[in-house]
Amino acid sequence: MNMYGHSPFVEKMRADLRLFVDERIIPHEAMMRGNDIDALEKLIVQLRAEAQAKGIWGPLLKKEWGGLDLNWRDAQVYLEEASRSPLGPNVFHCYAPDGPNILTLEALCTPEQREKYLAPLVAGKVRACFQMTEPHPGAGSDPSMLKTHATRRNGKWVINGHKWYSSGANVSSFSLLLAQSDEGPGIFLVNTQNNPGWRLRRVIDSLHHNPFNEPCEVDLVDCEVEDSDVLGEVGRGFEYAQLRLEPARLAHCMRHTGRAVRCVEIAQEYVNKRQSFRQRLADLQNVQSLIADAHIELNAARLVTWQVAALMDEGKSVKHESAMAKVFVSEALSRVIDRAQQLTGALGNTHDTPLAGFSQEVRGFRIADGASEVHRAAIGIRVLRRNVRP
Amino acid sequence: MNMYGHSPFVEKMRADLRLFVDERIIPHEAMMRGNDIDALEKLIVQLRAEAQAKGIWGPLLKKEWGGLDLNWRDAQVYLEEASRSPLGPNVFHCYAPDGPNILTLEALCTPEQREKYLAPLVAGKVRACFQMTEPHPGAGSDPSMLKTHATRRNGKWVINGHKWYSSGANVSSFSLLLAQSDEGPGIFLVNTQNNPGWRLRRVIDSLHHNPFNEPCEVDLVDCEVEDSDVLGEVGRGFEYAQLRLEPARLAHCMRHTGRAVRCVEIAQEYVNKRQSFRQRLADLQNVQSLIADAHIELNAARLVTWQVAALMDEGKSVKHESAMAKVFVSEALSRVIDRAQQLTGALGNTHDTPLAGFSQEVRGFRIADGASEVHRAAIGIRVLRRNVRP
Amino acid sequence: MNMYGHSPFVEKMRADLRLFVDERIIPHEAMMRGNDIDALEKLIVQLRAEAQAKGIWGPLLKKEWGGLDLNWRDAQVYLEEASRSPLGPNVFHCYAPDGPNILTLEALCTPEQREKYLAPLVAGKVRACFQMTEPHPGAGSDPSMLKTHATRRNGKWVINGHKWYSSGANVSSFSLLLAQSDEGPGIFLVNTQNNPGWRLRRVIDSLHHNPFNEPCEVDLVDCEVEDSDVLGEVGRGFEYAQLRLEPARLAHCMRHTGRAVRCVEIAQEYVNKRQSFRQRLADLQNVQSLIADAHIELNAARLVTWQVAALMDEGKSVKHESAMAKVFVSEALSRVIDRAQQLTGALGNTHDTPLAGFSQEVRGFRIADGASEVHRAAIGIRVLRRNVRP
Amino acid sequence: MNMYGHSPFVEKMRADLRLFVDERIIPHEAMMRGNDIDALEKLIVQLRAEAQAKGIWGPLLKKEWGGLDLNWRDAQVYLEEASRSPLGPNVFHCYAPDGPNILTLEALCTPEQREKYLAPLVAGKVRACFQMTEPHPGAGSDPSMLKTHATRRNGKWVINGHKWYSSGANVSSFSLLLAQSDEGPGIFLVNTQNNPGWRLRRVIDSLHHNPFNEPCEVDLVDCEVEDSDVLGEVGRGFEYAQLRLEPARLAHCMRHTGRAVRCVEIAQEYVNKRQSFRQRLADLQNVQSLIADAHIELNAARLVTWQVAALMDEGKSVKHESAMAKVFVSEALSRVIDRAQQLTGALGNTHDTPLAGFSQEVRGFRIADGASEVHRAAIGIRVLRRNVRP
Repeated sequence: MNMYGHSPFVEKMRADLRLFVDERIIPHEAMMRGNDIDALEKLIVQLRAEAQAKGIWGPLLKKEWGGLDLNWRDAQVYLEEASRSPLGPNVFHCYAPDGPNILTLEALCTPEQREKYLAPLVAGKVRACFQMTEPHPGAGSDPSMLKTHATRRNGKWVINGHKWYSSGANVSSFSLLLAQSDEGPGIFLVNTQNNPGWRLRRVIDSLHHNPFNEPCEVDLVDCEVEDSDVLGEVGRGFEYAQLRLEPARLAHCMRHTGRAVRCVEIAQEYVNKRQSFRQRLADLQNVQSLIADAHIELNAARLVTWQVAALMDEGKSVKHESAMAKVFVSEALSRVIDRAQQLTGALGNTHDTPLAGFSQEVRGFRIADGASEVHRAAIGIRVLRRNVRP
Repeated sequence: MNMYGHSPFVEKMRADLRLFVDERIIPHEAMMRGNDIDALEKLIVQLRAEAQAKGIWGPLLKKEWGGLDLNWRDAQVYLEEASRSPLGPNVFHCYAPDGPNILTLEALCTPEQREKYLAPLVAGKVRACFQMTEPHPGAGSDPSMLKTHATRRNGKWVINGHKWYSSGANVSSFSLLLAQSDEGPGIFLVNTQNNPGWRLRRVIDSLHHNPFNEPCEVDLVDCEVEDSDVLGEVGRGFEYAQLRLEPARLAHCMRHTGRAVRCVEIAQEYVNKRQSFRQRLADLQNVQSLIADAHIELNAARLVTWQVAALMDEGKSVKHESAMAKVFVSEALSRVIDRAQQLTGALGNTHDTPLAGFSQEVRGFRIADGASEVHRAAIGIRVLRRNVRP
Repeated sequence: MNMYGHSPFVEKMRADLRLFVDERIIPHEAMMRGNDIDALEKLIVQLRAEAQAKGIWGPLLKKEWGGLDLNWRDAQVYLEEASRSPLGPNVFHCYAPDGPNILTLEALCTPEQREKYLAPLVAGKVRACFQMTEPHPGAGSDPSMLKTHATRRNGKWVINGHKWYSSGANVSSFSLLLAQSDEGPGIFLVNTQNNPGWRLRRVIDSLHHNPFNEPCEVDLVDCEVEDSDVLGEVGRGFEYAQLRLEPARLAHCMRHTGRAVRCVEIAQEYVNKRQSFRQRLADLQNVQSLIADAHIELNAARLVTWQVAALMDEGKSVKHESAMAKVFVSEALSRVIDRAQQLTGALGNTHDTPLAGFSQEVRGFRIADGASEVHRAAIGIRVLRRNVRP
Repeated sequence: MNMYGHSPFVEKMRADLRLFVDERIIPHEAMMRGNDIDALEKLIVQLRAEAQAKGIWGPLLKKEWGGLDLNWRDAQVYLEEASRSPLGPNVFHCYAPDGPNILTLEALCTPEQREKYLAPLVAGKVRACFQMTEPHPGAGSDPSMLKTHATRRNGKWVINGHKWYSSGANVSSFSLLLAQSDEGPGIFLVNTQNNPGWRLRRVIDSLHHNPFNEPCEVDLVDCEVEDSDVLGEVGRGFEYAQLRLEPARLAHCMRHTGRAVRCVEIAQEYVNKRQSFRQRLADLQNVQSLIADAHIELNAARLVTWQVAALMDEGKSVKHESAMAKVFVSEALSRVIDRAQQLTGALGNTHDTPLAGFSQEVRGFRIADGASEVHRAAIGIRVLRRNVRP
């Protein structure tokens, strides 16, 4: 990787992280395919402590929480390295949805909420989920279609509704739940354990397999929420949801890049070894070209991500660039991983390496956070209305 | 579908099949995601009897086995309809690898082998597997790298080796196993149950989930085979393996087309219903264009498949056309299913419909039976050496 | 080419045509780049006589005009062979726009118009143009925006307006001109020579270089037309224009296929000869793969064209299939020719071979007769409204 | 454009340039399609003086020649703006091949050669050409196949050979001619006017129309060169040719970006105005998506170019990044311009705007300076041999 302008600090961080991922995380990563969550959590606690001891933990967490509080350009290097293993982001505490959850809570929570929700989340003692998406005819790409509703009753909010594709809801302790109300949309902090009003209907059987991030379906049945568990002000829910959008998207670009890097590493090792028709695969032009395209597109995806990171670090608006990056990066990395899979043949179709799992995750990235088609129309409209200079 | 030249017989068959699949098979198809194989087998036995009663069973099986013995052009219509559900081909007895296995046995087996192996296979009492592929550095795209070896010892063949990606080996009763020997390669009929020499090492955790078609890893450890269980002549194994190649590939094209059809049906229903930003998805040009491309490519894929079918029916060589069809159809259908997934958003990422599963299967089709890159090089060489007229 | 079902008659016709094109037409084709139209017309007259003598002239002309009156499936073979040279269609009388012009006239003209317009056109004594397209804000993809207007004055039609992109108008003797009127749209047969009301403003400098088919800009200034020169009935002009649409489009698919064939022939010859880095280009996988894709897509494009031809021969509606074919074929052949250009390097950028010219023509085919984007939206709407089975 | 890190100096330069191009250059650009070279040269002399007066002339020329001597990152902004018109680079003196020619001469020429060749070239009094490429079986992508040969005779070099695709040779006063010799390859400064040994065989009729940059074919027949006209040392010709490669390629990326920008500007203006089927084109999603993709890819192309510029400014090796950029940028911009053409319909096929001409130029960029296929193989080999980290 030849990104422009990396400091010695960043280069050392990268080297430390890579070593740690190679030696301490990858050897255990196969556990992510299994279902022994307790063992996994135990492992994560241990590895987290090791990472903390080495001073390479919590890239986006504030220093007061023990984190590195990196700017976004440095975080790009970090998240890429951390995400070469499916287990990495959980160890280093930079996984979705808790990254954006923490950011949302940091911005909005009261001192009491900070103690009750944010502190244990940052410490890795609990997990949270973010519940916006609903099944048809509710909120999907278009949040304004929100059907879940909060009503005032007996000095409390009482929520009814139906949520879908709530990632990690089954392993979370509380939810940042978006619901409509007569006062407009709000975000409610809902206890998801031992709460008769918050009912896990099922873990959805999906392409995506990450024990901490399974999509879930949840019924809200007269789910009660105290005023003290309202995040910010009711009425500003969409605005708050918007806040997390661009950082979440940017972190996704960085993590998926790290996954794609690993896929290409696996492919390079494979074709340098595997023979066919009396030649090493690496000696065939069709193979060389697939590898070349993987490098070419990885490089471009990094630069496009880095541009958004740099703008964020400067406090500038990234609305346009961030949408363009989402489309470009999700599609470029899908092609990169698809090539790696094509290069590794049957192996790439198995879960013997993380490649197959990463291919499923990146597939979802072209849909999550606004499908490419939605972004393309929105970008085009913006450009044409304002006659944005090409 | 507007394929040219269908007879009233075929049109009736198509209508009967579609009705049967819609009413009798699709309602049960979710069982294919589960692991209760006994219940599944019981269900298949029942549905198979219903299909037989309606005279729509066994498209490629000879009449003496109760099949329809269709020519390939008619089989194209059949296999497409039968494959709209992941459960269909098992009910109608036109699934891989037993379709090609039956074809191979029909061509080569002795009267005793016919009784012992072919009859129960055709009757659906047992399943078989075909074992050629090996892990590095053995046979992959290039069969000549075969490492599994059969040696004469005490009037028997004794086989040692390591097979990989043997589809359905865990649920089979016998294997058509390809092994090298001093007399050249041969196909050996190996008992896979209660055979201490044939050892299932594991069912490989893969992208592909079909309880009857899981890729398996198998060790051959002094596995004994009687002369009476040799298929045809030792020395001609590659030639025999070649025999099944083109029919297998053609049937794959047809089955994957049926899967893609179902995916587009699901997408069409979804976009005609789902709203976003105050519009039905169906009213958006980006959606219309994805649907248009799905129809355009499905149509082309069918024509390309049909050309090979027509040539096979005429007894002509299909070497060139079949390779071109493999590349074109596997890639076109991958795009078709990818579009359907993009159109259905989060739903298409779940196993609530067969779409997600079909997307995984079609991914494998670009690798199985010769990766696109291998075929492209071979086609190009053939064209350039013989200066084939474009 | 392995199209299904060709008769001995067609195979002989193909062989005769190929020989004629190779020996009599290709040696003269460079004249099509020049500007000596008189010499060209003289050459065409001579070669046309030779083709007539061999009984291979006029594929789509009726027997009474000395043509072959082929059905569309046979015409596909013919037009492909005829179009391997840019000079071919003019020699064999199967070029646009006179092919569709003749078809329109055959269907609609009076006995007098037949004598005055159709007979000399069929005989190759004159050329005609078809004028529908107008500059912004007039008729483009959407004919209903027609601005050119015909008014009754003194027992005649008097036409005023502005036409654009009228192909071949500068070398035509008369025009089939579409104009709006108070009675609805009509097609008027307009003398384009010595007519003060029909004014050639300019030959448009365009990507397209064919001396008989240059796009022109024309002003209509009080252009008078007698009632006897109205084609069919005024009011039905759009309906008449529609009549020619699908045959014209189909013939375009066939001609462009022939052009693409020639491009691939040139590329194959080049890579079989040219060396680079101590290897023949033909021995490089990247080259082999480009050649393979050219054959794969040519084959699919032919099949898709042939499906429409077969439906037309059966008198069935081709509205849906014809639109799908237009999109698929224009885009597939664009890629085929682009690959041929990539393979021939600098040579493919020169007019030393017809490749460069063909690349420009096929570019226009993605826009002419409805841009791909227009067709995609229309196909998608049709499919979704009627829930067309995929 | 939201490139990162532009200074106020650069922003002012950009604004000045844009204004100058819009007001002074674009109104005259149609002359580039004509053949009146004298009028053009006169116009260029005048506009050049105006640009010099405004202090915006000669981006890459040293200050001593009156240039701006920009670093590569600032030059990116400059060359993009300058290239929005086909006439721009000639006015501002940043066109190929004289940009690289000047660079080569700066690095290698003697004081006498500086006076005789470099000074008039920089002053815009003469033009030069660079002659390496030869027809089959000579030097193409692979310089080592050089067939043109220089022999010592009577104290002079005497050159014989055949050059092809020598851009601008017909309007040049001298050539930097690469020829093989017994002492290895050398670059010879050859007078191209009134030299009986340097014979212009023809201006090649090509896709490319730029009166100062037409590809030419030249015969070398006993062409005599004095020792004082040898550039650097004979034997190091390939090394010298290599020197210019990366700067030339980088400048090409920048200029083609500027062309693509103009194409998208034309398309945006068109779709914001043009109606079809009762809607502005700008209100259609298919149009919005094409515009979005144009912006997305332009942005990525700029970043990839900028990365190479930044590395060059730091004096780092750009071998790998420059090759990746060449492939990515040439292909991305080809797609951008193709979309603009699709959006403007028939207009985009005419030379009424520079779009059509730019589409032809960018086509050549995928071949010139190493076809994409050559680069992909080379990049893949480098990555796999050295196991470059993805």
